[in-house]
Amino acid sequence: MGIIVQKFGGTSVGSVERILKVAEQIITTKQKGNDVVVVVSAMGKSTDLLIETAKQICAEIPNREMDMLLSTGELVSISLLAIALRSKGFSAISLTGWQAGILTDSFHSQARIEHVNNSKILTHIDMGQIVIVAGFQGITTFGEVTTLGRGGSDTTAVALAASLNADLCEIYTDVDGVYSADPRIVPSARKIKRMTYDEMLELATLGAGVLHPRAVRCAKKYNVRLTVASSFSNVQGTFIEEEAGMEKDYGICGVTYNEDVVMIKIENFPNGADVLYSLFALLMQSKITVDFINQSSNDLPLTNISFTVSKEDTKRTLELLEENKERLEFNKVNAEFGAAKVSIVGTGLISEPEIIANMFKAFASANVLIKMINSSEIKISCIISAERLETAVQYLHTTFGLDTKEIAVVHR
Amino acid sequence: MGIIVQKFGGTSVGSVERILKVAEQIITTKQKGNDVVVVVSAMGKSTDLLIETAKQICAEIPNREMDMLLSTGELVSISLLAIALRSKGFSAISLTGWQAGILTDSFHSQARIEHVNNSKILTHIDMGQIVIVAGFQGITTFGEVTTLGRGGSDTTAVALAASLNADLCEIYTDVDGVYSADPRIVPSARKIKRMTYDEMLELATLGAGVLHPRAVRCAKKYNVRLTVASSFSNVQGTFIEEEAGMEKDYGICGVTYNEDVVMIKIENFPNGADVLYSLFALLMQSKITVDFINQSSNDLPLTNISFTVSKEDTKRTLELLEENKERLEFNKVNAEFGAAKVSIVGTGLISEPEIIANMFKAFASANVLIKMINSSEIKISCIISAERLETAVQYLHTTFGLDTKEIAVVHR
Repeated sequence: MGIIVQKFGGTSVGSVERILKVAEQIITTKQKGNDVVVVVSAMGKSTDLLIETAKQICAEIPNREMDMLLSTGELVSISLLAIALRSKGFSAISLTGWQAGILTDSFHSQARIEHVNNSKILTHIDMGQIVIVAGFQGITTFGEVTTLGRGGSDTTAVALAASLNADLCEIYTDVDGVYSADPRIVPSARKIKRMTYDEMLELATLGAGVLHPRAVRCAKKYNVRLTVASSFSNVQGTFIEEEAGMEKDYGICGVTYNEDVVMIKIENFPNGADVLYSLFALLMQSKITVDFINQSSNDLPLTNISFTVSKEDTKRTLELLEENKERLEFNKVNAEFGAAKVSIVGTGLISEPEIIANMFKAFASANVLIKMINSSEIKISCIISAERLETAVQYLHTTFGLDTKEIAVVHR
Repeated sequence: MGIIVQKFGGTSVGSVERILKVAEQIITTKQKGNDVVVVVSAMGKSTDLLIETAKQICAEIPNREMDMLLSTGELVSISLLAIALRSKGFSAISLTGWQAGILTDSFHSQARIEHVNNSKILTHIDMGQIVIVAGFQGITTFGEVTTLGRGGSDTTAVALAASLNADLCEIYTDVDGVYSADPRIVPSARKIKRMTYDEMLELATLGAGVLHPRAVRCAKKYNVRLTVASSFSNVQGTFIEEEAGMEKDYGICGVTYNEDVVMIKIENFPNGADVLYSLFALLMQSKITVDFINQSSNDLPLTNISFTVSKEDTKRTLELLEENKERLEFNKVNAEFGAAKVSIVGTGLISEPEIIANMFKAFASANVLIKMINSSEIKISCIISAERLETAVQYLHTTFGLDTKEIAVVHR
């Protein structure tokens, strides 16, 4: 038996009753002879409540103080969970992000974990204790409290699993695994039993919303075996690990989508690699994530560039570009809302030309126009009109036989 | 201009509106050219809510986890207050107990401050920032979060003022100063304008409830000048400082009382200094505070001992004594409820024999029986029946001329 890291999200610890349930689940794992390290998020809507209170004081909250405020949510969960475990006769101890040695960079509100100084955790494991760590938070080398931004608690769990060389990292949430499509849109969607990091990464990045891609990337980098399952049921979840060297089957394992897509269009941009670099360096410095990039290919001195950003980043992107209009020597920038991204994910797409053909066929049948297209080894994504998104997902799911196939078998 | 430490209690920061008001008050102090360090408690009833939630999980909450839980209350206040100050254009930074270098012993839930490592606070003061420190909490040398127990936030403020060599420590609360008696019982009670640490200590210890004696003791030790005032009004509060060397006037400055008194009676206790030491060492080890001690004086081998403890400590005291009955060789112990303590406080009581006489006269007129009596340089206290408490306070207040005297003049 080794170390198992278990992560419970906000809804999983959303009430006293839920905390007691989670405690029982942890005890079951502990009683099987494992050392257990638990990562928890803030209870239910408590983070939202804190943000709401702060916004009553000031619309623009300084990130450093927001981090101080939000970090309290997880401290409440860890202490309550430790109390619950101790009330059931198990030795447990809660650790804040800084106590657990989660060292991050200084980028408040979206800090990255740089290192885990796990000595305190190991000390408590050696004492036979269940260690409960606050997710989503860390500390800088200057002793400042940081929060990790979206997917922060998942990332804390994976980083701890990597640092502790854990046997398994179990992510418990309110869904029981990763599906071939959003069951709200595609009722025939099926749960995927096993998949690779890359497949999960594509599904998560593209909007499956089960496990944040940061966490998956970290798991892939350190080869941390993951499961995603529901803390509300005992149904088996989805297992994610690398299967290097195995000859892979080809096929589509899921259809996913993302509505948080805004197209930024720059007109009459100088045609050259140096200004292109200046443009994206500018966005990168402001931590604006760009997804699709499209440039009209020609040999003229001026060109048009389109790229996609999230809705949240749109205002800042436009402001940044307007501020740098003269330096970047372009003419006009605007944002186009009402777009969405739909993707098919699976192994070996590029080498199967009929898959792209089938995708276009599905779009044609569904009367969906493609605005931009992007492909990689394991996914093909298209930007389409958000109005046609639901129909597009359904047609793709049917076209690639996902309504009936046994998913876990198909793509492996 | 120098450093001013301002402390705001839970009701002073009990809502977003209150936090904005407090921010304005801090700004006024800052604009006068002072460096300002602010200590805040948790908002209003937030600590009670946390305790209530924890008690839904388990009746007996481990102190270490309770500290982790309760420390979050102040973190919410400091970040919200820092956000409020920054929204008004002032540079402010919130610091947790551990960030502020509040080093304590390891006695969770009632830790004592051992040292303030003030380098981080000084750095931010040097940057011209208003520093907001979480009251009521600290950190041990092992990196464990502690809370300071009752009067913790007041003590944090005074300890910081001492460490920073502040010009003044202002304690803001929901009452506008220290009164000659509880105005709810004695409508003619008057506010005391100036007093010494010792007088304040007696008034606070005896139940005036304005400022915790721990904080006053710390202020006395490090000669920190204190004011107690209301954050809800601009009325001048009570000023507390040492006036060594000054020839003091004699007189009573106030009447105070405490209903949290339980008399513990031990019958047939061996008459000897060694068992007496064992008895009180036992109580001390369990941090049970004993106030009055009375032993029937005789030369017999067995004696009766009475002492008073708080209601909260009563159960534990009885359990401890029962457990150690054989070792301490006594016969019987019981608790007597329904007692109360009433005291008169002022300078030079002992040297004025007519004061004790007047006290007994007041009790006689009020038909109050004295169960125990205790006196010091600046106070005389009696244990009486709680039923007669209100009458006793009123009679004492009148007997010592406090209804009409200008207090601040009288006793100085």
